[in-house]
Amino acid sequence: MPYINVKVTNEGVTQEQKQAIIEGCTKLMVDVLDKDPATTFVVIDEIDTDNWGIGFDQVTQLRKNQ
Amino acid sequence: MPYINVKVTNEGVTQEQKQAIIEGCTKLMVDVLDKDPATTFVVIDEIDTDNWGIGFDQVTQLRKNQ
Amino acid sequence: MPYINVKVTNEGVTQEQKQAIIEGCTKLMVDVLDKDPATTFVVIDEIDTDNWGIGFDQVTQLRKNQ
Amino acid sequence: MPYINVKVTNEGVTQEQKQAIIEGCTKLMVDVLDKDPATTFVVIDEIDTDNWGIGFDQVTQLRKNQ
Amino acid sequence: MPYINVKVTNEGVTQEQKQAIIEGCTKLMVDVLDKDPATTFVVIDEIDTDNWGIGFDQVTQLRKNQ
Amino acid sequence: MPYINVKVTNEGVTQEQKQAIIEGCTKLMVDVLDKDPATTFVVIDEIDTDNWGIGFDQVTQLRKNQ
Repeated sequence: MPYINVKVTNEGVTQEQKQAIIEGCTKLMVDVLDKDPATTFVVIDEIDTDNWGIGFDQVTQLRKNQ
Repeated sequence: MPYINVKVTNEGVTQEQKQAIIEGCTKLMVDVLDKDPATTFVVIDEIDTDNWGIGFDQVTQLRKNQ
Repeated sequence: MPYINVKVTNEGVTQEQKQAIIEGCTKLMVDVLDKDPATTFVVIDEIDTDNWGIGFDQVTQLRKNQ
Repeated sequence: MPYINVKVTNEGVTQEQKQAIIEGCTKLMVDVLDKDPATTFVVIDEIDTDNWGIGFDQVTQLRKNQ
Repeated sequence: MPYINVKVTNEGVTQEQKQAIIEGCTKLMVDVLDKDPATTFVVIDEIDTDNWGIGFDQVTQLRKNQ
Repeated sequence: MPYINVKVTNEGVTQEQKQAIIEGCTKLMVDVLDKDPATTFVVIDEIDTDNWGIGFDQVTQLRKNQ
């Protein structure tokens, strides 16, 4: 019955990448903890770079500085 | 002081349904735990079906297969 | 496929109350959104009153003042 | 390594306010807990007023009544 | 900068299993999204089986019925 | 109506530090967003260092290496 929540910035995550994250997280629960995939949820939250901060700054600003 | 977070897929949840979820969750806290509704929060997150996985697959794909 | 997270203070929530919360939240998803209870998760977090704040104060302190 | 999640209603939070929230939360972790800002995350979720309930009602409705 | 939260029931998750979950989730972020592991957080919450419900029932009860 | 969740490792956070975090987060919501403290919640989760990973490793291991 695991529930996995993945939060990443919304910088162009593709359908294929989302599918790969869901598959990979679910496989990990099956392989490591012997969980049933039918009741393993993976929820991906894509967060605007204005709304994610690290080291005092918005990621939007960090990207501009890179 | 309960905080309730309801995550569902974004498949056309109506205003009336949202209001019913908020009322129902709040009433449950009042009835079961004698909590004060004035400090009971209910937050509904509507998740894109691309971003919710179950049984290795995106819900978008599951809906197509149904 | 709903996921519901209920956060309450850890002030003696009983087995019966937990069961009632789980039943009530699940029933709400079935009645309001026609969801399948077999894939409806309810997770209850009991938070220490030292770790919950409201109106600038820990709930522990609010309880002493009541 | 703190992770701070701030949920507020989506009622026109500006860039400057978001930056101030990120700075303020990070500074609190540094000042109070001596944490490293380079590994302090702040994630802001802006919730639609239809999706936030308090005292049995949607915030959308509460705003109309004010 | 991903943040991954894994919620599982507290049914004897070992140190090795926790380490494997952390490694696996982090590797997924690196492989699929090219994220920096130095700023990838994985937080595991172990939930009491009394506090996790599925299909109207506490997991504690489901385990007894198995 | 803000809800703020602070997750930190459980490395001896004191009552005074918890109170300072609650006060600081609430003050930030009042000062920056003009929110009502009476409906501002702060919830602190203290996470076991075995259950928090960064850069592929458990924080427990990182602390031993320091």
